[in-house]
Amino acid sequence: MNRDNSNAVRRSQYFLPTLKETPAEAQIVSHRLMLRAGMVRQASAGIYSWLPLGFRVLKKIEQIVREEQNLAGAQEFLMPTIQSADLWKQSGRYDDYGKEMLRITDRHAREMLYGPTNEELITEIFANDVRSYRDLPKNLYHIQWKFRDEVRPRFGVMRGREFYMKDAYSFDLDASAGRVAYNKMFIAYLRTFARMGLQAIPMRADTGPIGGDQSHEFLILADTGESEVFCHRAYLDMDVMTADVDFADDQGLAAMVDRWTEHYAMTDEMHDPAKCPVAKDDLVEARGIEVGHIFFFGTKYSEALGARVVGPQGEDTAVQMGSYGIGVSRLTGAIIEASHDENGIIWPAGVAPFQVGLINLRQGDEACDAACNGMFDTMRAAGTEVLYDDRDGRAGVKFADMELIGLPWQLIVGPRGLKNGVVELKNRASGEREEVSAEAALSRLAG
Amino acid sequence: MNRDNSNAVRRSQYFLPTLKETPAEAQIVSHRLMLRAGMVRQASAGIYSWLPLGFRVLKKIEQIVREEQNLAGAQEFLMPTIQSADLWKQSGRYDDYGKEMLRITDRHAREMLYGPTNEELITEIFANDVRSYRDLPKNLYHIQWKFRDEVRPRFGVMRGREFYMKDAYSFDLDASAGRVAYNKMFIAYLRTFARMGLQAIPMRADTGPIGGDQSHEFLILADTGESEVFCHRAYLDMDVMTADVDFADDQGLAAMVDRWTEHYAMTDEMHDPAKCPVAKDDLVEARGIEVGHIFFFGTKYSEALGARVVGPQGEDTAVQMGSYGIGVSRLTGAIIEASHDENGIIWPAGVAPFQVGLINLRQGDEACDAACNGMFDTMRAAGTEVLYDDRDGRAGVKFADMELIGLPWQLIVGPRGLKNGVVELKNRASGEREEVSAEAALSRLAG
Repeated sequence: MNRDNSNAVRRSQYFLPTLKETPAEAQIVSHRLMLRAGMVRQASAGIYSWLPLGFRVLKKIEQIVREEQNLAGAQEFLMPTIQSADLWKQSGRYDDYGKEMLRITDRHAREMLYGPTNEELITEIFANDVRSYRDLPKNLYHIQWKFRDEVRPRFGVMRGREFYMKDAYSFDLDASAGRVAYNKMFIAYLRTFARMGLQAIPMRADTGPIGGDQSHEFLILADTGESEVFCHRAYLDMDVMTADVDFADDQGLAAMVDRWTEHYAMTDEMHDPAKCPVAKDDLVEARGIEVGHIFFFGTKYSEALGARVVGPQGEDTAVQMGSYGIGVSRLTGAIIEASHDENGIIWPAGVAPFQVGLINLRQGDEACDAACNGMFDTMRAAGTEVLYDDRDGRAGVKFADMELIGLPWQLIVGPRGLKNGVVELKNRASGEREEVSAEAALSRLAG
Repeated sequence: MNRDNSNAVRRSQYFLPTLKETPAEAQIVSHRLMLRAGMVRQASAGIYSWLPLGFRVLKKIEQIVREEQNLAGAQEFLMPTIQSADLWKQSGRYDDYGKEMLRITDRHAREMLYGPTNEELITEIFANDVRSYRDLPKNLYHIQWKFRDEVRPRFGVMRGREFYMKDAYSFDLDASAGRVAYNKMFIAYLRTFARMGLQAIPMRADTGPIGGDQSHEFLILADTGESEVFCHRAYLDMDVMTADVDFADDQGLAAMVDRWTEHYAMTDEMHDPAKCPVAKDDLVEARGIEVGHIFFFGTKYSEALGARVVGPQGEDTAVQMGSYGIGVSRLTGAIIEASHDENGIIWPAGVAPFQVGLINLRQGDEACDAACNGMFDTMRAAGTEVLYDDRDGRAGVKFADMELIGLPWQLIVGPRGLKNGVVELKNRASGEREEVSAEAALSRLAG
């Protein structure tokens, strides 16, 4: 069923307000480019609307996250944004969060809050409906808007107040099963980021207000990163297994995690130069952007909120838990930080809003219009995602806009080429241009 | 790419806590069944978590809404949940909403609110980025959580406080173009509800706090409906064009809308017995559930918020607007109200969480397990959505649970049948049972 015609759009009809000027308020490149490329607009401080182009990227990222969570055996569900304060008082975190928590009083004077994370609520759901060890293991995740009332929101969607996050929660009978759940998420995270074109490095991390005794942050290296990081250069080109991984093979997963944690990798909070075992030549000091964070915290919440099961010998046991976050909206910015040039964004194919930008160099010219319309219809029918710049206007404007938006392929159609039976195919990342027949171009782009 | 293994699940691993007892707090059948079928759990008053089974239905409904919006030419984007109060003061609605609006003060003492709807914010976005009539028409929609602080939330997701809604906003140069946009949504709504197995009736409606001079509510008839409705019986079996509709044919659409509005259909707010032209025998008096509401309100918000474009003659013009809502989370309950029996839910195929419930009558029996595993794997590979009840336990429990959950097809595998080379295929809606070979069953279910 090809009912969805949102994958092939005409620029003349599409709400895509690109900007020539760089907005003054944007301090980092991803923020500048997201505004200029018409991906987002600020609604209030640290709160954004996602215009159609940005929304498509957000959904692509979300879908990759979802597929890899499902593959690793996590089950999707959905918790609400507004929570009761009561649960947070039970866990003791109501005060911990301080002013970053957006606190709300409803019409009946009940204390509510906009969830910054969901350990309490998921633990309550589990506690009310799961009673036996036979129902374990479980890993439940949701992808939902969260809110943290940052004192100084900045860097666009990279450090906004309302943000989109995937958070998973694992429940196991004992710590060794809990470690298996942790390893599954660890590997799923590497795969997830690799599919977005990112080399993410797992680093030992502080557990902060989530708590627990084991935690890894996943960071990508970028000059604008908020953290200073120290890692062995081996991480710079380690290969992620994005092909088949057997998530039922506990030992195989543990070996992969061992391989990914054998070298030194720490954020500045954890790094101690005196204890760092890496030779100076092998140590990379860089800046990093956090894109994921996983925690194993045992019974911290299950004890506080009564998430207990009856074990195989009839014993009553608090379940072992972990939680696993990926910043979905933040990733949009992080990918741009990692992949752009002076002309604009360079989307990795897996998250590009469209695969092809079709440029009509002379709108109104009969041959150009006919060729473009034909190719557009062919791509639409084939399910190739295409943005067709069919506006009246100068070629220079169209080129600059398409570079800015950063689709992987540009298909450029002009009167001179058509006379010779060719169109131009340009790769955004490499800059390579090639003249080929329309048929050859279409078959390449469909493949 | 068949990476997603969430469409074929084993009950023994799936988080699906069905309940035998009817929860005391649930007053209407959809609320009772959603709790009993393990679809939702209340997080706080009028606020729900969607467990995996309920989440799947919510996503199915969302996707149908999305496809039909896209087909009608609307473009998807996303606005945030938290808005600044300033815009609402500009439009004059900050006070209108009273206590139903969830008001929030952030850490810098700024007045914020959880959006109950988005006319103000979308008008601001439009005003900032669209300047010319050449960029019209536009219809932008989003599917996002909303909040209305109902004084007495009840009926589960039918009248919750945090709810999931699709809202579209159209922008046009003049009223006649605005009417074309309205007609597109009118027809898209009929198609949307029909794909969910619902006969929705468009009724003249009061415009309430949204404002404007034209509005239709779409209601489905159900005994538990909150509104009293009066309509000509012709509406009970009018046929919706779910096949191809040409959304570019303005006159064709207008004729369809005329056909769907020529008979009398009013909610009690608008109904006047003295003026009702319908003969007594032709008048249906019933109860209805509102599932959609569309408005054409002209320049109410564009004037207040400065959404103006330069017209073809250079004149400065406030744009004509409409807004168009569908209650996505509410529909989950509404569909159950319209489609259930004493044993549980009867899902229309288009929104069923899975198409097939595979029941192993004797888990642990070698032949039964092998047959079920084989069929399960075949269906998974074919992309057929299947929930396999592989639990240890009595057949009676499995039957009752599968009836409750209400998947369209039950595939029942027992040792006696297997000896004769047959399995049983049961249609949930009709109750018809048929003994067929496993191969025949699978080919029917794949079709």
